[in-house]
Amino acid sequence: MNGGGTDVTLSLDALRTLARDTLLRVGLAPDHADAVTETMVAGERDGCASHGIYRLLVAASSIERGVVVPDAVPVVSEPARALVRVDGGGGFAQLAFARGLPGLVAKARDFGIAALALNNVVHFAALWPEVELLADQGLVALAFTPSHAWVAPAGGTRPVFGTNPIAFGWPRPGRAPFVFDFATSMVARGEIELHRRAGRPVPDDWGYDADGNPTTDAAAVLAGAMRTFGGHKGSALAAMVELIAGPLIGDMTSAESIAADGGRGGSPIGGELILAVDPAGFLGDAVAAELDRAEAMFASIEDQGARLPSSRRHAARARSLVEGVTIPRALYDDILAIGAGKAD
Amino acid sequence: MNGGGTDVTLSLDALRTLARDTLLRVGLAPDHADAVTETMVAGERDGCASHGIYRLLVAASSIERGVVVPDAVPVVSEPARALVRVDGGGGFAQLAFARGLPGLVAKARDFGIAALALNNVVHFAALWPEVELLADQGLVALAFTPSHAWVAPAGGTRPVFGTNPIAFGWPRPGRAPFVFDFATSMVARGEIELHRRAGRPVPDDWGYDADGNPTTDAAAVLAGAMRTFGGHKGSALAAMVELIAGPLIGDMTSAESIAADGGRGGSPIGGELILAVDPAGFLGDAVAAELDRAEAMFASIEDQGARLPSSRRHAARARSLVEGVTIPRALYDDILAIGAGKAD
Repeated sequence: MNGGGTDVTLSLDALRTLARDTLLRVGLAPDHADAVTETMVAGERDGCASHGIYRLLVAASSIERGVVVPDAVPVVSEPARALVRVDGGGGFAQLAFARGLPGLVAKARDFGIAALALNNVVHFAALWPEVELLADQGLVALAFTPSHAWVAPAGGTRPVFGTNPIAFGWPRPGRAPFVFDFATSMVARGEIELHRRAGRPVPDDWGYDADGNPTTDAAAVLAGAMRTFGGHKGSALAAMVELIAGPLIGDMTSAESIAADGGRGGSPIGGELILAVDPAGFLGDAVAAELDRAEAMFASIEDQGARLPSSRRHAARARSLVEGVTIPRALYDDILAIGAGKAD
Repeated sequence: MNGGGTDVTLSLDALRTLARDTLLRVGLAPDHADAVTETMVAGERDGCASHGIYRLLVAASSIERGVVVPDAVPVVSEPARALVRVDGGGGFAQLAFARGLPGLVAKARDFGIAALALNNVVHFAALWPEVELLADQGLVALAFTPSHAWVAPAGGTRPVFGTNPIAFGWPRPGRAPFVFDFATSMVARGEIELHRRAGRPVPDDWGYDADGNPTTDAAAVLAGAMRTFGGHKGSALAAMVELIAGPLIGDMTSAESIAADGGRGGSPIGGELILAVDPAGFLGDAVAAELDRAEAMFASIEDQGARLPSSRRHAARARSLVEGVTIPRALYDDILAIGAGKAD
């Protein structure tokens, strides 16, 4: 660790140890701590500060306030031949996903397509680690999850949807997969919170106040409703995420999740749906040739100076693997202080 | 038919006869004519004029110019246990879908999830009829198809993507299903063509001219590149549609489709991917209760005065079933003139 300035630089191994020790200190079971640590380290490594090691503060708060079951034991079942379900028992989503992953991969290869539902899990992370893991195994993957009801439908001003991300992964032989992961809200909720803390106004198309009026007051949007991205199209996608990662898998909508939270301000609790398709299912021996066709499309994007969705993350990753990561000293100190009262 | 004014009113049965007779007259095989007719009648019935009976002109042109194989015999296969493939043999997509539908439904019920790929088909229609048919059978459905390379990726100005629609269907017991179907381009290409014909400028965020500059000239956008909806998020979705309804199923990207067209100006040729999930797979006996949960979400949208995506179509449908449909006399006359030279 280099603690000389206002920032702290850590190797990825040191970051991993810091995260795991912190999570164990606040009482998270070791198998959960391992899974959660990998997700946070991946986020920080890839330059996603908002989904990186900062999330230790969020996770610790969820544990300390009883929002998450720290020693939940995920239970895997097979509700239909091409479906896997993991009941997360109220624990973090990461371990439930890890437990369901082998079955999802095996079924996708067996049947050509398969789906995994995580139920009764606490979400604090991005979805791209999940689809990237599947793409690393040569599968095409989609993931969806509702959150808390914070977002108004197009044509309305009252919250119904969560920020409802959609993530997609596509395998690229010899390269990091093509991956995207975005909220169907206009911006991430954390973006609005950053504006509020900084006392900065938000653009007037980000959301509504509690009376349904457009506003540039970040705090008013947080207390009112955010907008979806892309007008009625983004709103339709947000509704789809509610449906397929809520009722379709027997889990809560975003409205039910925030009602269940009961004002604790905890992370969303509910479900997640992950689809996996094996390219060999439709393509057989033609997989390599068809993946080349995809590469030609990627080239036609990059050749005109446009970026692929995952390119910024991958560049950050390449740097982090060599140089480690640098985090603000204030965050580092906050992390060291987590659970300090319990450490005695 | 009521031919008194500048419009012509037809019952849905009369419309069906008009469409079928026209398609047969230009040489489309009877089984194809039946399938194509149902799609066009459904569009006109639901108030989608641009995907209604007007498409007879488009379909007839595709037949007359040899873009479509008028008597193609779709071949159904099962590349993996939960996958169905239909090689459309260069015919219209509608019959290929009809041939693949029973297998897709059976597999979704058997395995919980299944996928259908249509290959080597000509597309001129919207995707919502496909997902609506699946939702009518109690399944959740998603459909995707590339088109011709007309749309620039976010951050670029040269065409890579098609208008690449995404359609979704969700069953609602006792009601018409929840369905959406939208292009991932900023607007439909037909919308820009309407502006060009009317000599009206388009908004400056719809596209670029052939030199990559933003323009309000509709003809310049048609010769240059359209934009995706929703910035980088819509662009990511457009890329996903290229991949999963192109290389993943062994079919063309939009760039390959327009290259294959070779300047004929024909409808896109290529693939389509349809996913189906049986709610009973994850839910078993709880399907009814979970669908109620979805109804609560729909109510929370409509209760604040916002519309569900399919509501306008369903209102038009209710009217059309009673009153028939009204089309411009000029269009009616154009349809009667189709293939007139061959009728002798």
